[in-house]
Amino acid sequence: MSQIEQILKGDRLALARAISLVENESERGRHLLDRLFSRTGRAHIIGVTGPSGAGKSTLVNGLVKSWLSLHPSAKIGVIAVDPTSPFTGGALLGDRLRMKDIAGDDRVFIRSMATRGALGGLSRTVPAVIQVMDAASLDPIIVETVGAGQAEVEIARVAHTTLVVEAPGLGDDVQAIKAGILEIADILVVNKADRLGEDLVVQSLRAMLELGFQKPTADSRGEISQVWIPPIVKTIATEGNGISELVDQIQEHAAFIRGNGSWRKKDRRRLESWLESLYAEKKQVQWEKVVRTKTYAGLLTSLLARRLSPYQVIDQIIGKKSKNPS
Amino acid sequence: MSQIEQILKGDRLALARAISLVENESERGRHLLDRLFSRTGRAHIIGVTGPSGAGKSTLVNGLVKSWLSLHPSAKIGVIAVDPTSPFTGGALLGDRLRMKDIAGDDRVFIRSMATRGALGGLSRTVPAVIQVMDAASLDPIIVETVGAGQAEVEIARVAHTTLVVEAPGLGDDVQAIKAGILEIADILVVNKADRLGEDLVVQSLRAMLELGFQKPTADSRGEISQVWIPPIVKTIATEGNGISELVDQIQEHAAFIRGNGSWRKKDRRRLESWLESLYAEKKQVQWEKVVRTKTYAGLLTSLLARRLSPYQVIDQIIGKKSKNPS
Repeated sequence: MSQIEQILKGDRLALARAISLVENESERGRHLLDRLFSRTGRAHIIGVTGPSGAGKSTLVNGLVKSWLSLHPSAKIGVIAVDPTSPFTGGALLGDRLRMKDIAGDDRVFIRSMATRGALGGLSRTVPAVIQVMDAASLDPIIVETVGAGQAEVEIARVAHTTLVVEAPGLGDDVQAIKAGILEIADILVVNKADRLGEDLVVQSLRAMLELGFQKPTADSRGEISQVWIPPIVKTIATEGNGISELVDQIQEHAAFIRGNGSWRKKDRRRLESWLESLYAEKKQVQWEKVVRTKTYAGLLTSLLARRLSPYQVIDQIIGKKSKNPS
Repeated sequence: MSQIEQILKGDRLALARAISLVENESERGRHLLDRLFSRTGRAHIIGVTGPSGAGKSTLVNGLVKSWLSLHPSAKIGVIAVDPTSPFTGGALLGDRLRMKDIAGDDRVFIRSMATRGALGGLSRTVPAVIQVMDAASLDPIIVETVGAGQAEVEIARVAHTTLVVEAPGLGDDVQAIKAGILEIADILVVNKADRLGEDLVVQSLRAMLELGFQKPTADSRGEISQVWIPPIVKTIATEGNGISELVDQIQEHAAFIRGNGSWRKKDRRRLESWLESLYAEKKQVQWEKVVRTKTYAGLLTSLLARRLSPYQVIDQIIGKKSKNPS
């Protein structure tokens, strides 16, 4: 059986190897992606984000367990994106521990990936790894990442359904940050709902939702406008409480976006944002070539001596005559 | 007097107008920058970052006050980069309140700027605004931003001296995140040092420093190697405690990096990273043009139909023949 066939069949070893090739951005990995791409586009991609300490991994563990009890024949992909430790160079292993219930199940394929830089966003190979899992018929594919700025925005760009997980007592209560998070959340999860301060978290999320979303109103033809208002689901992931309601809400969201055309729009947005980042990568490679040229070295000398401004240097590199009249 | 002369003289109104031109990325702003650039490169740029709730603005308020009492003839620039609220569209005003002691002082020029997107990094015009302030002989220039992922990395790229501010009880104690922060910190500040848990924050920072830095050892010629180990300064910014020690440490760091050549290196790194982002912006503009072409529309249709992979689309856009053998 060819490598492609093995992956499509969901062979775990072939899948693991394919993901490694793709993660290393090798030429072989690229060809594999080209060939697998026609078999993708079916999986429901679920993003899980939120501050560290909110219990995201435990929640994913519970979510997968609950999903499998409802759909015993499902095969599920989990991508856990962790900040790289600069001391060990590897992704954190804690996730594996918190996903112990599902780590041994052969219907579940878990892959840990490091973030781009210690504080950066998603690894740039996340979309490619999703595609390999999608081709292998893993569905849903859950992408979990700590909510540190850029990563949250990026996860919303790849996911059909984005869960933002909060918990009481994380000191993460600055309005502006949460307001930004609300823009990307399809479902708000208040985990550790047995902890002191749970009601405050729920209340402040509810207040922000009311600020941010108009109540659905009947339009001129008497139809209710199609607005998804993120539900707030309370969970205690360590005990499994609230997880089945969360699964319901995720499936309801999937049905909602399939019904109103958003699913296709999100698929398109994901692919377009992937294109944009591939283009930016190519241009980044070009820049790295520019930096090694003699021309650049000369321009840099003029820049450091304050004879040319940064804009003038860039104009010279790109080949446009400077329009500066001075 | 010409606009340029007024700015160089430090005229507040001319400075405010110049910064607005630069922030709007107008053609006039660009020409102004080209002409001011030769007058820059003197200011000490100090970055202040850390989680929300650490008391950064109050600390900056105290820092500026203390600096001015030591150097009464100094003129100081403050750039406060706040997350934009998606509901109001403007930067938060809270900073102004927390900087009340210095907001009325005509030796201090404060400018609030919004972040790039609600969760994004520094505004891309921050380096340009720094240059205008630098030309106006503001020195030091303090850039304050909430530590949300990317912004921290970016602040370290523009600053000579980066302060990372922590405080007890912020729930921001994940080792990996702090480890990332340590890479950028020149000085660690534990603010709100009168709060419960202060010793824990100090201890964990110290433990990480010991992990991350070798003790300075004498080399083969018996000289102590030049390694800056970030000091940990405890402050209670609301009461002014520890601020004068912080000023000392900042000046010591400045002297250290001037002495070992890092000052110039940091200047160069800042300008090079500015060049790189200007180049990326130009390419971004090119991409936005590509997206509006018929060719792109056709390729996108093939992509969504899974006939072409994202890599194949990009190769066609960039004009390289696909090397895919399949």
